Amino acid sequence: MRERVAAGWDELFSSAARGMRFSAIRRMSALIEKPGIISFAPGQPSPETFPVEEFREIVADVIAREGAAAFQYILTRGLAPLLSAVREYAAAKGMPSQPSEVLMTEGSQQGLDLVARVLIDAGDVVLVERPSYIGATSAFRAAQARMVGVRLGPEGLDLDHLRERHRAETSAGRRVKFLYVVPSFQNPSGISHSLPARRALLDVARELDLLVVEDNPYGDLFFEAQPLPSLRSLAGDARVVYLSSFSKVLAPGLRTAFILGPDELLAKVEIAKQSANLCGSGLDQRILLGCLRGGLIEDQKARIRPYYRAKRDVMLDALAREMPSGVAWTRPQGGLFVWLTLPEGTDAESLLEAAVAEGVAYVTGAPFFVDGGGENTMRLTFAREDAPTIAEGVRRLGRVVRADVTSDRASSR
Amino acid sequence: MRERVAAGWDELFSSAARGMRFSAIRRMSALIEKPGIISFAPGQPSPETFPVEEFREIVADVIAREGAAAFQYILTRGLAPLLSAVREYAAAKGMPSQPSEVLMTEGSQQGLDLVARVLIDAGDVVLVERPSYIGATSAFRAAQARMVGVRLGPEGLDLDHLRERHRAETSAGRRVKFLYVVPSFQNPSGISHSLPARRALLDVARELDLLVVEDNPYGDLFFEAQPLPSLRSLAGDARVVYLSSFSKVLAPGLRTAFILGPDELLAKVEIAKQSANLCGSGLDQRILLGCLRGGLIEDQKARIRPYYRAKRDVMLDALAREMPSGVAWTRPQGGLFVWLTLPEGTDAESLLEAAVAEGVAYVTGAPFFVDGGGENTMRLTFAREDAPTIAEGVRRLGRVVRADVTSDRASSR
Repeated sequence: MRERVAAGWDELFSSAARGMRFSAIRRMSALIEKPGIISFAPGQPSPETFPVEEFREIVADVIAREGAAAFQYILTRGLAPLLSAVREYAAAKGMPSQPSEVLMTEGSQQGLDLVARVLIDAGDVVLVERPSYIGATSAFRAAQARMVGVRLGPEGLDLDHLRERHRAETSAGRRVKFLYVVPSFQNPSGISHSLPARRALLDVARELDLLVVEDNPYGDLFFEAQPLPSLRSLAGDARVVYLSSFSKVLAPGLRTAFILGPDELLAKVEIAKQSANLCGSGLDQRILLGCLRGGLIEDQKARIRPYYRAKRDVMLDALAREMPSGVAWTRPQGGLFVWLTLPEGTDAESLLEAAVAEGVAYVTGAPFFVDGGGENTMRLTFAREDAPTIAEGVRRLGRVVRADVTSDRASSR
Repeated sequence: MRERVAAGWDELFSSAARGMRFSAIRRMSALIEKPGIISFAPGQPSPETFPVEEFREIVADVIAREGAAAFQYILTRGLAPLLSAVREYAAAKGMPSQPSEVLMTEGSQQGLDLVARVLIDAGDVVLVERPSYIGATSAFRAAQARMVGVRLGPEGLDLDHLRERHRAETSAGRRVKFLYVVPSFQNPSGISHSLPARRALLDVARELDLLVVEDNPYGDLFFEAQPLPSLRSLAGDARVVYLSSFSKVLAPGLRTAFILGPDELLAKVEIAKQSANLCGSGLDQRILLGCLRGGLIEDQKARIRPYYRAKRDVMLDALAREMPSGVAWTRPQGGLFVWLTLPEGTDAESLLEAAVAEGVAYVTGAPFFVDGGGENTMRLTFAREDAPTIAEGVRRLGRVVRADVTSDRASSR
């Protein structure tokens, strides 16, 4: 028997830590990670898309050219030539910047965490979409933010609801620090804000003097028309903090993402990052630099869009075939996710056990709502499984949903 | 002219962010980073020690064997086989553990940050050595800790001072969350706690029911006798949280470190890490795994100890030749740093400009003291420069110090 600190951990933990729980998705994993299961659950790009051969060549080249220097600490902001390359990359998307406005992060998750740490005191308000990305809300929760949900419609944010919730919070004397949005092919819903909705959102942000944190990990995975301009490029001002990542286009095991935002903010983010992890992986950043310089990243985007589009099509076709009436789903124009809404009163969480028994898994939707609701929703990704397996998985899911809907009707007779 | 958020950043920043400043070392960098300067300043291992050829082979092997899977997200705790290898590695140092007691971090800096986040509320007390490692104190400051310094003598911590300061803080109603120590070849002082001092420290920790955070990045760089046992291995209990890193033995560009500690604590740290950066670099962790499995890491340690010992000897010999009486310095038995104390009343910061003019740089000591003092101290590393350059640098530094001491005598006449 080992000696413990007698005081007990609850006395030692910070108030943030006392509130920390493993995420609902994490708890679900234990249930759904079974061999042979068809999984629409993981929020991960497919390894089939990773340009491994190119990575191999870039690493060999980096080591041959740079030798030991490639393994020294790098600057907290990121490798200097990479920062230039990322600024060019962003400028080509209509987001010119000064050097002081860009910083590399080890995944967008780190960007979200650092932004939260430099902006949020316990009880400060963050406005988020309903539903919203769970990685972001967990970072905001770690900073002890009060999260307030704003309705997300098929074309974008409900701006009357945004005004209303903003007014209620400020009237109560609380400080609204920012609005967090994923305007393109959102995780979890697959919804994109339309161009008019983007412009209108920026108008309201100006009207409310609201800082906007725009998270855009999926923007390059568009399947139809050209992608919509980012809020940052539309705003042309320092009201929008833009985060993006190379995880979905290259590979997520390389921890490479960036923040583009106001220099005052980034100066604080840099200090916070220095104490958070000193610097990123020099090798990961050099691989990304090789991909940006060689133009590989554009080839890669051109290659993976049809790959994911084909899988999305299979999933949408299968849903149309297999789902009973009363079930609705989004038709994402890009990204990795379809959002499914069961009839009111159906509980996606209690359905999950039956689904797993049928050999198919998904992520329940409720955890993506910061202030309740969404019990009848689920997130499905088409990223992981191949086309025939997607069709078979939706067939199984259809059986489970139909059985549930039928038994509901039976029991309500 | 770009539009800004009208409210102004000071209203938006968190109270932690309002207190964030670039570190003194960072501000010094602007002064001392000149081409051709002999630098005893950087806290970095020498790239000459990095096993680049082995890294190259391991990466090639990883990509050949694992392919795309090597570039997927990894678990927040770290790659499963790496966690096992690290547990074996720690067990060989007298620190057996359960799987729930180990977690990989992206550098020890992240470990320090996460431990601070799960333990510290604003105003909570952390006891630190005087002087103490600046990366740790910056992480504790980001968590808004109140840091209280405990005197560090040539053999270890002044335990009467520890008791006294602990009593003063608890009497004032403040919560002391932990004691932070770097017991082996400390950065910045080069001091190691002796074996009796380690045992006595643990006795006092039990007496005060104090959690100890032991940071051991330099323990494997011992130059003389076998290394002293870690506090964790001596304690044999859950009172010590142990952090270590592979940055100094392999290379710091690979962000690979670990925490070994009580499972209750690590469960919270894991949740905090998930929202901080989701996971580490899969490639960096696979390279480390290759180094641990192949036994390379032990060869590497055996190779770099004489490398750094020889450079330490050159620096100590040069100091003995060049420094006037009244100047004292530590004789580190390992690590990367020598700590120099000028005569009382001499200011190492104002001396720095003259030193840079002579073409030699160091880091001033005062920033390593959380509660003032140390103005007459400086940190010198022998890691960066080669032997003749170290001798020449100390010669220059000697000239600067002698000139200052002489002018002091003249002006006090």
